[in-house]
Amino acid sequence: MKIALCQLNSIIGKLDYNKDKILKGYRKGVEAGADLVICPELSLVGYPPRDLLEKDEFRNAVMNKTKEIAALTGDTALLFGAITEDNDLIGTNIHNSAILCFNGKVQFVQNKSLIPNYDVFDEMRYFEAAKDVDVFEFKGEKLGISICEDIWNDEDYWYRRRYSEDPVKKLIDKGATILLNISASPYSYGKREERREMLSVLCKKDSIPLAYVCCVGAQTDLIFDGASMCFNPEGELIKLGKTYEEDFIIYDTNNDGQITNRTEGTFEEEVLNSLIFGLREYCTKLNFKDVAIGLSGGMDSALVAYIAVQALGSEHVYVMLMPSKYSSEGSVKDAMKLIENLGISYKNVSIQPAVDKIKELLAPAFNNEFAEITEENLQARVRGVYLMAFSNNYNYLLLATGNKSELAVGYCTLYGDMNGGLAVIADVYKSDVYRLANYINREKEIIPSEIINKKPSAELKPNQTDQDTLPPYNLLDKILRMYLEDNKEFNEITSEIGNEEIVKKVLRMVDRSEFKRNQAPPALRVSRKAFGYGRRFPIVQGWRN
Amino acid sequence: MKIALCQLNSIIGKLDYNKDKILKGYRKGVEAGADLVICPELSLVGYPPRDLLEKDEFRNAVMNKTKEIAALTGDTALLFGAITEDNDLIGTNIHNSAILCFNGKVQFVQNKSLIPNYDVFDEMRYFEAAKDVDVFEFKGEKLGISICEDIWNDEDYWYRRRYSEDPVKKLIDKGATILLNISASPYSYGKREERREMLSVLCKKDSIPLAYVCCVGAQTDLIFDGASMCFNPEGELIKLGKTYEEDFIIYDTNNDGQITNRTEGTFEEEVLNSLIFGLREYCTKLNFKDVAIGLSGGMDSALVAYIAVQALGSEHVYVMLMPSKYSSEGSVKDAMKLIENLGISYKNVSIQPAVDKIKELLAPAFNNEFAEITEENLQARVRGVYLMAFSNNYNYLLLATGNKSELAVGYCTLYGDMNGGLAVIADVYKSDVYRLANYINREKEIIPSEIINKKPSAELKPNQTDQDTLPPYNLLDKILRMYLEDNKEFNEITSEIGNEEIVKKVLRMVDRSEFKRNQAPPALRVSRKAFGYGRRFPIVQGWRN
Repeated sequence: MKIALCQLNSIIGKLDYNKDKILKGYRKGVEAGADLVICPELSLVGYPPRDLLEKDEFRNAVMNKTKEIAALTGDTALLFGAITEDNDLIGTNIHNSAILCFNGKVQFVQNKSLIPNYDVFDEMRYFEAAKDVDVFEFKGEKLGISICEDIWNDEDYWYRRRYSEDPVKKLIDKGATILLNISASPYSYGKREERREMLSVLCKKDSIPLAYVCCVGAQTDLIFDGASMCFNPEGELIKLGKTYEEDFIIYDTNNDGQITNRTEGTFEEEVLNSLIFGLREYCTKLNFKDVAIGLSGGMDSALVAYIAVQALGSEHVYVMLMPSKYSSEGSVKDAMKLIENLGISYKNVSIQPAVDKIKELLAPAFNNEFAEITEENLQARVRGVYLMAFSNNYNYLLLATGNKSELAVGYCTLYGDMNGGLAVIADVYKSDVYRLANYINREKEIIPSEIINKKPSAELKPNQTDQDTLPPYNLLDKILRMYLEDNKEFNEITSEIGNEEIVKKVLRMVDRSEFKRNQAPPALRVSRKAFGYGRRFPIVQGWRN
Repeated sequence: MKIALCQLNSIIGKLDYNKDKILKGYRKGVEAGADLVICPELSLVGYPPRDLLEKDEFRNAVMNKTKEIAALTGDTALLFGAITEDNDLIGTNIHNSAILCFNGKVQFVQNKSLIPNYDVFDEMRYFEAAKDVDVFEFKGEKLGISICEDIWNDEDYWYRRRYSEDPVKKLIDKGATILLNISASPYSYGKREERREMLSVLCKKDSIPLAYVCCVGAQTDLIFDGASMCFNPEGELIKLGKTYEEDFIIYDTNNDGQITNRTEGTFEEEVLNSLIFGLREYCTKLNFKDVAIGLSGGMDSALVAYIAVQALGSEHVYVMLMPSKYSSEGSVKDAMKLIENLGISYKNVSIQPAVDKIKELLAPAFNNEFAEITEENLQARVRGVYLMAFSNNYNYLLLATGNKSELAVGYCTLYGDMNGGLAVIADVYKSDVYRLANYINREKEIIPSEIINKKPSAELKPNQTDQDTLPPYNLLDKILRMYLEDNKEFNEITSEIGNEEIVKKVLRMVDRSEFKRNQAPPALRVSRKAFGYGRRFPIVQGWRN
């Protein structure tokens, strides 16, 4: 069977736009002589649609568009993702569905069986599980259709499983000769390779070919990286979609392709590409042409400026230098060197007179006594005011430049350096920020070495460095990674780190900063566990270990 | 049977504290000669614990405390809420459980069957459903134990149901002679009365008594109002717990109490009490003694100041007046009158010199051109900087004063007037803000009538009023209520309002402000649908109707 995979970039809720994409892909498939064209999970809707699904008008519009699409099909079949409803008056009555249509009609619907509801996934809020699965006979094959999570529960592959059912096993037991999976699976580093391995084992075990089509695009914080995959019955990956862009792939199950083994680049390559792509997508989909960044002369803002230039072009990146009396001489000099290397335009406006003026005005009310925290935060917040004025005045999207380590421990100022519409590197630890910088400089110096080599400092008081308050970043990040990503706990971390005091201090800082993260901008997600939607802790709580 | 209901206020995650509360309640019950003492859903854990449940150490600690509690029980039985685990390696392996213990041991565990996963509830993220329910024979009665949502699915009461199972019906079919429900059910106006009605119908239908114990307390944005209820087999409410405080109730199923019909006060009473309670709880549980508020002379900040005084006492409320050149003369005068009426201390610091200084500093970078939005937001943000300095300098919790109407349409400034640790009235529409103010003044003028009667204005440019940009609040709120609370849609709202243009404009403003609300502080929830955790829309999306 000749299958065309359309790796599409839908926009959530923009139904006509998504419908056109699906139909364009379908026609391309028809022209290429495909028997079947497949598009990703919820490709008509965009993923994740969240509470839009609770709107009747929205659901009805989706179902109408589904019919319109089906009406335009001929002999060649089209499989795409949409929603369907049942009407038993119990539950949400909505299904996450794979719609198979040809000859002008919807011919078969397979609903999703396994409904993910962990980390960033909230699907049980919206979707009921399929009552059953069935194969569909088409052109001499028995199609075994599944949706994303459905294929992630193989009893032989996973030691612990999320669900008791295995819909793919059922399809195979019912005689499926080809597996089709339509997906929307957000990227984190390492996941693509894990997916390849898992799917390969599954195909090989049952000697069955698989066409796995994934969406591409970023949806606010979530990055969908593409990389659709086709496997032969030996479990070999023989077609691999492009990453970070749309693609169209023909997979002829009777003619093997080229065997590919490498699906994922290095950490530095992939994470950088994801962030560049995620930022570009956010701007494109919200119609922002230009971004604003506060450039401190430090490492984080330098990396964000580089990413922005890659994403949007240097003519669309506007930076502001905002020195104070605590800024080192190097800060402005280093920032200027970076500005030159990146070819971006800049403004330089000191915050000192504004900070002084505000202190002067507040002094009588404060009996002339300013706590250290007041003074430090005041500087960060005046910078925040400048940047938002810059953003408002020219309709630039302000980018927040904080990294994951500082967001984790609350080493950042609410309404100050946390300001922004999107936090570009808030899912990247500080030690990884350096890895990315060194990678960027692998051929020539783009980020000035002075920036990479200087001691990290917020420069909010004289001779301050981050390490006055925090453990060294390598140690901090090791603790954070265990706590956040690996979900390890106090005792486990302590026994590995060997210093109970430091571990206790770090975990408490993390727990106490929940109120700050609660008001943080969305962060592009590149790890298995990012702050934001996928990590939900109470602000008011008393658990301490 | 003599049942003691302990209406407890747990702190999420503070296990020793919660354990002590449960045991104190138990001993009180024993002293009162109760056969059985019952405590709310997850009373050992605090509700909602969210991702704390994903921590092994936390779960193990809960299960150890459960055993410790059980070990201290004698003849009198104790029923309380905790978690239990199964070990089948499928799913989360965690249950939301009712633990029945006596004579030093856990004697019976009933897991929750119906796992709510809508609005503010995410329980399917954590909990597996009970495999079955059973009655437990104790002192000649058959106890039918259920947990919160379990009792909200009566086929005869609901036209549409969320679940196909009805665990309470099963318990009755299995011969239950007394129903016990342990709950954690967040307040919204009208819910208490709905609950009474629903439970009354259920008891009457099966001629069975019910003891329903609910927690009390606020957990960040969610307010649990108490009002535990006991019904006789005629469906009459014969015991009603206190609202907004802990309570201890004895219900003897063999001796009727006093029949109560009224469970809920007026909208004004209940909402005010909820907000006062919610704010007090947030401060108490986070150890804040004092709050800071920016007082504009307008209606919203006046209401928040009143609520703060009620919650914490006038000596703990610190307000700041921050006039600009656009502040009307009345603004400061009216604010002063309110300050006097409330007996609170204040500071008055003009923002004008700071705004002028910042404009002067930015002017060269902006070619001396300031957009209107830049100027307006700049004022709001300088106020935000002042207030955060006030907060930082004295460890005051800053309260955000925005109402639901302006948060809905984005008529507020990010990092400006949206600043705060808690948004006290962000779930109250502007027209309801006036209702509350008039109620507060019912006996004597506390909120100056000048504040109530003046035209709402942001005072960010000359002679500005809110109605330059927005429809009249009565109309706006009508549209918003239909859109947000009643989940009505464009066509329905238009046909009711009769003005397509206005409806379209309002709904688009709501949809476009998602990015602002995404960074808003938690809002005390008093309606069926509040912004925040219970309403989840994508920031990047293209749905327009």
